[in-house]
Amino acid sequence: MKKIKIGILGYGNLGKAIERIAHNNQNFEIVAIFSRRQINSTLGTKTEPVENLIYYKDKIDIIFLCGGSYNDTMEQARQVLKNFNCIDAFDTHAKIDEHLTFCNNLALQNKKIAFCSLGWDPGLFSLMRVLFTSLGKQVYTTWGKGISQGHTQAIKQIPNVIDGIQYTIPQKEIVKQTKTGVIKNPSSQQLHKRVCYITAKKSHQKEIATTIKNLPNYFAGYETQIHFVSKTALQKYKKHYHSGEVFCVNDELNFKIKTASNPDFTANIMLAYAPALIKLLGQKRYGAYSILDIPIGYLLPKNRELI
Amino acid sequence: MKKIKIGILGYGNLGKAIERIAHNNQNFEIVAIFSRRQINSTLGTKTEPVENLIYYKDKIDIIFLCGGSYNDTMEQARQVLKNFNCIDAFDTHAKIDEHLTFCNNLALQNKKIAFCSLGWDPGLFSLMRVLFTSLGKQVYTTWGKGISQGHTQAIKQIPNVIDGIQYTIPQKEIVKQTKTGVIKNPSSQQLHKRVCYITAKKSHQKEIATTIKNLPNYFAGYETQIHFVSKTALQKYKKHYHSGEVFCVNDELNFKIKTASNPDFTANIMLAYAPALIKLLGQKRYGAYSILDIPIGYLLPKNRELI
Repeated sequence: MKKIKIGILGYGNLGKAIERIAHNNQNFEIVAIFSRRQINSTLGTKTEPVENLIYYKDKIDIIFLCGGSYNDTMEQARQVLKNFNCIDAFDTHAKIDEHLTFCNNLALQNKKIAFCSLGWDPGLFSLMRVLFTSLGKQVYTTWGKGISQGHTQAIKQIPNVIDGIQYTIPQKEIVKQTKTGVIKNPSSQQLHKRVCYITAKKSHQKEIATTIKNLPNYFAGYETQIHFVSKTALQKYKKHYHSGEVFCVNDELNFKIKTASNPDFTANIMLAYAPALIKLLGQKRYGAYSILDIPIGYLLPKNRELI
Repeated sequence: MKKIKIGILGYGNLGKAIERIAHNNQNFEIVAIFSRRQINSTLGTKTEPVENLIYYKDKIDIIFLCGGSYNDTMEQARQVLKNFNCIDAFDTHAKIDEHLTFCNNLALQNKKIAFCSLGWDPGLFSLMRVLFTSLGKQVYTTWGKGISQGHTQAIKQIPNVIDGIQYTIPQKEIVKQTKTGVIKNPSSQQLHKRVCYITAKKSHQKEIATTIKNLPNYFAGYETQIHFVSKTALQKYKKHYHSGEVFCVNDELNFKIKTASNPDFTANIMLAYAPALIKLLGQKRYGAYSILDIPIGYLLPKNRELI
């Protein structure tokens, strides 16, 4: 197989994970990492300011968009898709439809391919939800135990919060009762609790706790525990592990993931789908794809022995 | 959505399950059941001798091939694909490649579509094996506790066996040690035990037991338990439940199924993929597809809310 030439746009946890995994996989050649910041690669990858992307037109097969979904991904896709194919792990659920539609138009205009929202959720879990639903089942998803980036971000934006993180943890008893059919159609609020570790001045803590517990969409309606800890103590809670489960009543169908490193796991999924993009490109099937649109057989060069 | 007009070829457990599930699903209209035998449908479905299939050309969208994989499916596909699209659950692993290639040629010649080997294994489990492998993981499969049709058939063909069934049961301790990484690359023989319930004359039992335990591919190398029971007692062991698991070390990825009725579960999967066949037909993408070739997004009319 010809090596796939990749570029990495954004050099946070996800960008670094893509770099490290691709570096150790002979199917990939990392051409350059692009960033708005001055960066250095410990693995010796070439780094470039993002303005220089254009000079790499025709030298890179796929750009991996590794900015944050919150501020970066949609904008990065706009910049990149005119000249490159790209893969992102955009995870703002409410905007996935908009993102896919926009990328699809841009990709079709420019004869490119974009794979959007390719991680474990959205991503692998989306596959399972559609599969289980198509089999006529009511489907449930739980996340955790693990840090939720979205909720952590929400906490950090509250006035007077110095630093903080949020763990999403399934409510074991509710999950069990859902599986046995005792509880029907539990909400996400019933299925999870939210545990926050926060650094803030003593005088602000009471107000912060009240604000968090009432934050609509994020915390309101959830069992929310808030622990105020020192800056040093907080570091110990910054763990990368995560897990999650998609299931039906009686566990008739059940899909679980458990990873020591959330960014590594997402990076691994994004890279695993790269050969599928190259294959679709060869068939000139331009446009934007979600994980639901890509046949799983496209991931491996030969797969019939696994049928 | 327009109703999908289906035909059922073969009226054993699988054919009956297809009939019952489709009968209760308003997306389907069962046009007729075709059989070599004289049959009656308890649900009032029209029945036809298999020779009359030809008269239904253009009146049926998809024929479900419900004969046994061992003797029937490959032959049924030959008969059907000239005039109809079809879906089968062909599960003789060693011949899947041959079956797919043959069906692909025939389907392309006749502008038809065949979905082959669409059940839970081969089927859903194949999807998971490719997915997990593409993520760089070593992947393991266990089946059971449940009756294996293939092994049951193998037992029944042994001289002097009056009747019999075979349960496949995972070796819990080995599975556990595989998940924790203590055991690496266990064989199917290590991962499973095989428990047989057999009816035979006392004078034949010793010889039958020896034959079974040494049957290559099927029992040799497995922990095999053999229980001789009366004809009446044997009926109590004829259960339809089954289960299975595809997993990696540490359960980093894990997919499990558990069903009260193996034929119902397979029938449900075959029917769930019918809308995808119709969609591909609309795009004139003729040929034979395994589950690996079909985007999961094709299973539902609208799926983006599940991403």
